[in-house]
Amino acid sequence: MQLTTYTDFSLRILLTLAARPLNERVTTAYLAEHLHISKNHLSKIVNQLGHLGYLKNTRGKGGGLQLAMPSENINIGKIIGQLEPTLEAVNCQTPACPLISQCQLKGLLNEATNAFISVLAEKNLSDLLPKTSS
Amino acid sequence: MQLTTYTDFSLRILLTLAARPLNERVTTAYLAEHLHISKNHLSKIVNQLGHLGYLKNTRGKGGGLQLAMPSENINIGKIIGQLEPTLEAVNCQTPACPLISQCQLKGLLNEATNAFISVLAEKNLSDLLPKTSS
Repeated sequence: MQLTTYTDFSLRILLTLAARPLNERVTTAYLAEHLHISKNHLSKIVNQLGHLGYLKNTRGKGGGLQLAMPSENINIGKIIGQLEPTLEAVNCQTPACPLISQCQLKGLLNEATNAFISVLAEKNLSDLLPKTSS
Repeated sequence: MQLTTYTDFSLRILLTLAARPLNERVTTAYLAEHLHISKNHLSKIVNQLGHLGYLKNTRGKGGGLQLAMPSENINIGKIIGQLEPTLEAVNCQTPACPLISQCQLKGLLNEATNAFISVLAEKNLSDLLPKTSS
């Protein structure tokens, strides 16, 4: 019942950037050191967050990472849904479960996952900011 | 956001037994073959389900596994809470997150996990049974 490390680290990156002034840029090297994440891992995450439209990466002198939108516009339920490889709590196909055609567990788990995401969808990144920047 | 394979397989075992008459016993060899789970893996799960009081394992001729209580008494939220290694959606300590002292993400995720478990806690194993036994 854990989120992937990938999603966890993505949220740490976004929270760190959201705690700074909107126009301030932060280097990937700083983020990697500050968050204790390898540069390689961090680069992959930052690329995907860029593709999803959450981050802007400016190259060259004075460049760096910043949020591409106000933290009020980044919904926690939506982004977790985008980052998690699956929202299915179980995989009935691996190995194929003989109960699959009549089992009602999957439907119940889907309902529970929807409740999980609904709670998260009530909050945006701005709601989770530390009271003082780190 | 997945349950562990261990929890998934535990539920498959319990559902399979619950679909049978209460006094009917099933061998671990049958269960392993029927559910496509290795005997070694299945034995570990069956042992824990026994320790938790859900299964009874009778040895000797005519022996085998059966539920130790009616399926109406096995709560899905409770058993998933017992089987999952953690109900914490993220681990802020690995690596230690510098935001930890002020971050409000963990509290939100705990609230979401509680919503997930609450939906499951509304159902017992008997509510999930296939309409015909497998």
